[in-house]
Amino acid sequence: MLVIGELINGMFKNVQEAIEKKDKAAIQGLARKQIEQGADMLDVNTGPYVKFPKDIMKWLVDSIQEVTDKTLVLDSTKSDVIEEGLKIVKSRAMINSTNADDEKLNSIIPLVKKYNTMLIGLTMDKKGIPRDRNARLEHAAKIITTCESAGIDIKDIYIDPIILPVNVAQQQAIEVLESIRELKAICDPPPKTVVGLSNISQGTNKRSIINTCFLVMAMANGLSAAILDPLDKQLMDFAITADLLLNKNIYCDSFLDAYRKRK
Amino acid sequence: MLVIGELINGMFKNVQEAIEKKDKAAIQGLARKQIEQGADMLDVNTGPYVKFPKDIMKWLVDSIQEVTDKTLVLDSTKSDVIEEGLKIVKSRAMINSTNADDEKLNSIIPLVKKYNTMLIGLTMDKKGIPRDRNARLEHAAKIITTCESAGIDIKDIYIDPIILPVNVAQQQAIEVLESIRELKAICDPPPKTVVGLSNISQGTNKRSIINTCFLVMAMANGLSAAILDPLDKQLMDFAITADLLLNKNIYCDSFLDAYRKRK
Repeated sequence: MLVIGELINGMFKNVQEAIEKKDKAAIQGLARKQIEQGADMLDVNTGPYVKFPKDIMKWLVDSIQEVTDKTLVLDSTKSDVIEEGLKIVKSRAMINSTNADDEKLNSIIPLVKKYNTMLIGLTMDKKGIPRDRNARLEHAAKIITTCESAGIDIKDIYIDPIILPVNVAQQQAIEVLESIRELKAICDPPPKTVVGLSNISQGTNKRSIINTCFLVMAMANGLSAAILDPLDKQLMDFAITADLLLNKNIYCDSFLDAYRKRK
Repeated sequence: MLVIGELINGMFKNVQEAIEKKDKAAIQGLARKQIEQGADMLDVNTGPYVKFPKDIMKWLVDSIQEVTDKTLVLDSTKSDVIEEGLKIVKSRAMINSTNADDEKLNSIIPLVKKYNTMLIGLTMDKKGIPRDRNARLEHAAKIITTCESAGIDIKDIYIDPIILPVNVAQQQAIEVLESIRELKAICDPPPKTVVGLSNISQGTNKRSIINTCFLVMAMANGLSAAILDPLDKQLMDFAITADLLLNKNIYCDSFLDAYRKRK
């Protein structure tokens, strides 16, 4: 499974402080640590508190690219902030995100085309996040068909069925799990799937076990990628073990270490 | 999910010694500890080494029943050993196991009827354990139809798709996981499903994480019950969390402890 590191996000206090102080080394340290622990890509989000998000996106991308050429996942609700990052990325990027709303699709799809990026599509629209798996699939279908009409290859599309916190929307966990499975059959070839994992445990106790358990269940249902905290050792150990049980890594006695080294 | 404690089994050295010394307190301690940690039922198996398995089965059942009235899962390849336990059980028992072989079914079904027990059916026959999910489903269908013809209620049937160790039969893990899901659609109402969990990690390193990860994946696919080590705290914590994410327990901040106390 593809691991997207979530830690470079201005909603976290340490990142917010690094942004305020223009502490490049702090951001680069977060990039390095996440990659060392198995991140394949890095999410980059200025957070909601910055005054000049375009400048901050540019600074974050510049800083990170000094230490890694991993794929960056440019994460913003504003397309102009995303584009500021796209202008300077060196490796092929991923956009996080569009949703099924026409206006949103119309602002994001041109960026995907112009900069030849991958794309995360959230199964929601202006009316909000659906309550069941069927509405999630309908939103996914709209995103996929609109993208395909625009000439975007389905292998570049990651559908995110949107996890809600288990302590406020407990029934939604199953809906997301089953959406992941059903998305694998929505068309052929199917879209990839991705989740913003930590949302499942937002505001709960025992966050690591809830995140880990949900990730393993989602992987059993065919999840392709997750935005998560790669510094959570338990979480990463279980992700590696789940890939083993899904026959994606060969067993050896040191399979946990062997997989980490291979990255 | 239904937890069947696996620890009273003569293949384990401590149980073998307790049997040799007729150390009733040791067996009763194992029964108590498993129940304290969340076992709903207890598997009882004399192991392969005893000279007089019928006498030992009787002694084990007698010893355990002095300290608990939980359901006992009488586990033997020999129907006369199972019957020796059935003669004296006080609560309704479960037989572990039949398989799809005619001779086996003919020896076990009369016991299920005579003693009104629940039944585990292994998806194999004289030719051995199948390699894919389809053959597993065929064996399950044979067990179910033969049992139903004999008047056994499907709600009392637990189908075991037979886990093999991941280090020798890695591809089989997925076949078992998908069998569990497909068994939920084999008939309406469907049979329950059960696995002998520890087999997945037989001979491997990192047994607890492999067992735990596989259990969570199987639960995501609808597993009804597992024979496992309830003293493995990580395993039980994840089982409780998986039930939470499957919306079977309500979230509260102390959900891990709350669930244990309720048992």
